[in-house]
Amino acid sequence: MAPQDILTALRDQNPLVHCITNYVAMNIAANVVLAAGASPAMVHAPEEIPEFTPICGALTVNIGTLSSAWLASMTTAATVAGAHNIPWVLDPVAHFISDYRKAAAQDLLALRPTVIRGNASEILALAGEAGAGKGADSGDSVDAAQSAANALATQWGAVVAVTGPVDYVTDGTQTAQVSGGSPLMPKITALGCSQTALMGAYCASGPAFQAALGALAHFKVAGNAAAKVANGPGSFQMHFLDALRSTRPQDLAQVIA
Amino acid sequence: MAPQDILTALRDQNPLVHCITNYVAMNIAANVVLAAGASPAMVHAPEEIPEFTPICGALTVNIGTLSSAWLASMTTAATVAGAHNIPWVLDPVAHFISDYRKAAAQDLLALRPTVIRGNASEILALAGEAGAGKGADSGDSVDAAQSAANALATQWGAVVAVTGPVDYVTDGTQTAQVSGGSPLMPKITALGCSQTALMGAYCASGPAFQAALGALAHFKVAGNAAAKVANGPGSFQMHFLDALRSTRPQDLAQVIA
Amino acid sequence: MAPQDILTALRDQNPLVHCITNYVAMNIAANVVLAAGASPAMVHAPEEIPEFTPICGALTVNIGTLSSAWLASMTTAATVAGAHNIPWVLDPVAHFISDYRKAAAQDLLALRPTVIRGNASEILALAGEAGAGKGADSGDSVDAAQSAANALATQWGAVVAVTGPVDYVTDGTQTAQVSGGSPLMPKITALGCSQTALMGAYCASGPAFQAALGALAHFKVAGNAAAKVANGPGSFQMHFLDALRSTRPQDLAQVIA
Repeated sequence: MAPQDILTALRDQNPLVHCITNYVAMNIAANVVLAAGASPAMVHAPEEIPEFTPICGALTVNIGTLSSAWLASMTTAATVAGAHNIPWVLDPVAHFISDYRKAAAQDLLALRPTVIRGNASEILALAGEAGAGKGADSGDSVDAAQSAANALATQWGAVVAVTGPVDYVTDGTQTAQVSGGSPLMPKITALGCSQTALMGAYCASGPAFQAALGALAHFKVAGNAAAKVANGPGSFQMHFLDALRSTRPQDLAQVIA
Repeated sequence: MAPQDILTALRDQNPLVHCITNYVAMNIAANVVLAAGASPAMVHAPEEIPEFTPICGALTVNIGTLSSAWLASMTTAATVAGAHNIPWVLDPVAHFISDYRKAAAQDLLALRPTVIRGNASEILALAGEAGAGKGADSGDSVDAAQSAANALATQWGAVVAVTGPVDYVTDGTQTAQVSGGSPLMPKITALGCSQTALMGAYCASGPAFQAALGALAHFKVAGNAAAKVANGPGSFQMHFLDALRSTRPQDLAQVIA
Repeated sequence: MAPQDILTALRDQNPLVHCITNYVAMNIAANVVLAAGASPAMVHAPEEIPEFTPICGALTVNIGTLSSAWLASMTTAATVAGAHNIPWVLDPVAHFISDYRKAAAQDLLALRPTVIRGNASEILALAGEAGAGKGADSGDSVDAAQSAANALATQWGAVVAVTGPVDYVTDGTQTAQVSGGSPLMPKITALGCSQTALMGAYCASGPAFQAALGALAHFKVAGNAAAKVANGPGSFQMHFLDALRSTRPQDLAQVIA
């Protein structure tokens, strides 16, 4: 199932995507998922996760504005997803900034996410290597994180997506790269977090490696379109959301190598 | 007091609207209320609700990203509003997705909201009928929810507003419909939640049935204007906020039947 | 170090700014800081603050959607910042609406913020004077708050910035005014909160009085640019973010008196 077929399926099926994400990302991530063609659901109460996660097509977990109560919800949801064979995506935002967050990322990793998405610094640190990340921003090149991504993919049986100017995705065997987008994209907050949410929507509609690839390609295609008309980060975000909706399945292949 | 007179009063009085809403909606709901001409206040600490709710013109309660601590705040605020004869609007977002959320919606309903606003699936489920809702999205037509809306209005002495391509509003005796807007509107997250917040602003400025009708009409008029110039959900949201501000009171009647 | 030199330094150094702010402001405040050229980090877990705050260039604390857990995080972070000589900015949003919030603002004030930023009503109330504020909106003129600002600056050894149509800033000795912007700015939610976050970025890059002045001027310059092309609050916000990025250091002086 090629990425473009997954996008077609996503728009036909409009899958429900359970997103446990950070406060900064909630609105833009939901708008990204909606614009692409799926249905986001932000739910975090422990009382309803065991009932809700199983009816979703995928789960995404993002530790951006972490706290102990939210971590408990993430752990519960990831466990429920695992038990029901629901694909789930882990976004270990800036997990290297504190021992607390590092431990949280490793605990979630042990629950065996279907896909791990991070910037280069996050992926390097997740594999136990030193990086130059600063807060939510990467300080390392995607190339420098390729071997860490391969190691994580093999160790955990996961698809690993490293995002940056040229994205890299691997399942430990296959690899692919996705290029395009705009230098403005890291200047819009939570766009990476929104990429994670979209990856959930793709995972609900097709197999993990191709799904991750499709979500990455969808972002690059929409980013290319927005870059042509944007005058800065404000107008870029607006055009980007418009372009996520107007992106055609057949456009995805052009940015994948 | 016709809807258009309520909009004029709203802009003259700039009422303070206490909104307890979900994390996804907070920013856009506040922007919607501000653009329309009122003053939103997002406050949820139990320590200050008994002091704060009574100085507001209206309260709105939305259970989108529910948790036990927030539910306690909602219950307190609704009780305080009732005791002070302050109108309040209940938005039972996706309450059918879990037993926990169903119980929360029924508990809040028992505190007798002035207005209940939901999509067709939410209103059907609130009246105890089966629906086809999926997460925050409706799977039912507004027409299919009319009798459920009438029953709820009569049972609880509330105005009930069912939103969709053609909105339906009833107080159990009077009914009205509001048409217009754009198919892009459900593709922008939390626009329904923002409609609830705006309904609070209208309720602070006039009687409940006409207030609900006015808030629905304001959305449809602004939606019509945005639909003419939008290229997708990103630009729609921007033009919609601009249009909420430029909508004139006399424009409201044109979308009401 | 003039405001324009601080902006140049900010863009060169891309400082990490620890923001503990309200749910309404999180996304737009992060976008404002990114657009200006710094790196925002929204972190509130007590488990990681002692490790994280010291690696940041500045801290900003905003009590908009206050609760007891968040107040504890704010207090911890402000204490850590003080112990590490990291500049921090206090935004006492609508602190006059309840005894709870008043006490929180005074407790934070006692931790000696480097800069205090508020609207006229907030600054008047912080100095113990009566005002006409309503929720997050000011009901008083900036002129009426000048003596309160001077008194606070002297009492606490802080820079005090009062924002409004013409901003006023003082450290108890020096004073300056900044003019420009647009009447649409108070119609966009959390723009004042975002100003606080940006002030943190400036404080990370230069001395407090000139930093506060620079952040105020940056907003006015970008507001002037956005006002020329905006059709309402939606398009204003978009153009404003674009303009924050395109503002040149040498533009700042033109709005400072």
